[in-house]
Amino acid sequence: MKFRRSGRLVDMTNYLLEHPQHLVSLSYFADRYDSAKSSISEDLTIIKQAFEQQGIGTLLTVAGAAGGVRYIPHIGSQEAKVFIENLCEQIAKPERLLPGGYLYLTDILGNPKLVNQIGKLYASVYGDREIDVVMTVATKGIPLAYAVANYLNVPVVIVRRDSKVTEGSTVSINYVSGSTKRIQTMVLAKRSLQEGSKVLIIDDFMKAGGTINGMISILEEFNAKVAGIGVLVESENTEERLVDEYISLIKLTCVDVKEKQIQVDLGNYFHFLKDIKEIKNQVDEELEE
Amino acid sequence: MKFRRSGRLVDMTNYLLEHPQHLVSLSYFADRYDSAKSSISEDLTIIKQAFEQQGIGTLLTVAGAAGGVRYIPHIGSQEAKVFIENLCEQIAKPERLLPGGYLYLTDILGNPKLVNQIGKLYASVYGDREIDVVMTVATKGIPLAYAVANYLNVPVVIVRRDSKVTEGSTVSINYVSGSTKRIQTMVLAKRSLQEGSKVLIIDDFMKAGGTINGMISILEEFNAKVAGIGVLVESENTEERLVDEYISLIKLTCVDVKEKQIQVDLGNYFHFLKDIKEIKNQVDEELEE
Repeated sequence: MKFRRSGRLVDMTNYLLEHPQHLVSLSYFADRYDSAKSSISEDLTIIKQAFEQQGIGTLLTVAGAAGGVRYIPHIGSQEAKVFIENLCEQIAKPERLLPGGYLYLTDILGNPKLVNQIGKLYASVYGDREIDVVMTVATKGIPLAYAVANYLNVPVVIVRRDSKVTEGSTVSINYVSGSTKRIQTMVLAKRSLQEGSKVLIIDDFMKAGGTINGMISILEEFNAKVAGIGVLVESENTEERLVDEYISLIKLTCVDVKEKQIQVDLGNYFHFLKDIKEIKNQVDEELEE
Repeated sequence: MKFRRSGRLVDMTNYLLEHPQHLVSLSYFADRYDSAKSSISEDLTIIKQAFEQQGIGTLLTVAGAAGGVRYIPHIGSQEAKVFIENLCEQIAKPERLLPGGYLYLTDILGNPKLVNQIGKLYASVYGDREIDVVMTVATKGIPLAYAVANYLNVPVVIVRRDSKVTEGSTVSINYVSGSTKRIQTMVLAKRSLQEGSKVLIIDDFMKAGGTINGMISILEEFNAKVAGIGVLVESENTEERLVDEYISLIKLTCVDVKEKQIQVDLGNYFHFLKDIKEIKNQVDEELEE
């Protein structure tokens, strides 16, 4: 059926938002709405403008026969700052303090809206890297991993502490926990990860980095590569960090269990967040090569 | 800044999609776009039409001073049927069969797009019930629970098999597994669920229903109520089902481990999926009362 522009704009917006990082051909939209490609092009210009103006992301257009349009989710640095500062405030509440200097984050990680926004923040810094799959370890990191994966349009793989009958055959490794120095086990279903995959590791909390190091070790068993490491909260006062390159949203600078005080700061996220224009230029260069 | 209609339509569509089940006042949009309420009303009519026509959902308008507009995600029965039948086909592949008659579902549950769509299917049947929180048990049900919760605009609570230091104090119960008859434990952080909550239980797989029964028992400890039970796959050939009312997308009718054969059928989902018009009438009646 024939669509008017206004109806097309609503449906195209929904379609693009539901298919981040997909390359959608203009013909697809032209057929979907029984409209001329020139009209579709004009629609896309309007959507692109609104997306950029409102901090939703941008549209990249790829010319040529195999071309089309791709929605790149992206958050502006101002909006990211407001969001992370707000999160810092919530996390610094002393009632979050648990024995051992851990933090109660269950309520934050249980809020789909916050989790989605964190996913979008990570997708904004990892969107221009080649990533085949997002990996996390059960249980707390799972919602974050799905939120990121959704914006990056890739699947999720979950490492477990124990093997389950519903996973089929598995690969397991032992690793040393960074803070407790105890030997622990990690298990990943054989079928769940392809050899040579480029993997983005996501987790909720990093102390010394033992758990993330464990995930890196299990990736080696699959000849897979680390494409990036993102953590929601990093704890600063650790003797030695086992992981070098990672991106954190929040840094725990001081935890005083006795005095029930928590001090937090912005993580290193903003060193990595690019301007939307930079991303566009970079993609243009890649296309020209 | 002032927006033209086309830009408003794009941004409002994004805003509504990001805030399902929220009541958004017309003044909010009027301020956001520095536009007259009459223009906003016209925009909403266009969006509503496109949402209904394209099977995205609908907009409910609530009149009066405390009024506004609410986006109700909803899937049409035809689209739901195509999706579930496609899922059935994928699930019936013999290579999914694992020892004990279990099914390998990790790839399906690892696909954020499929998981979101399953979430929307459940939101379409549970959207008109009073639900405060979605509950699941670690690990497999977690992505499904978040997808549903996201569309219902409520938080997620995760029951575990073991207590963790990062959860604070917990309530634990013992229950009997339906199929193996073994005694197992379930644990829920005290802080994570409020007394008297109305809870939608979501899980990926139900055999005899022991796990779900365990979740119901733990809800009793919190004086919480079951508002609904949704499972992705139910297994039919169980001696006695421990759970009465539930909604399943897919029913496993026959599993022959020896011959490596799986037979699946549509679950009871379609007995519960209402037409979007029914939902609108129901809401109208509730508003009139």
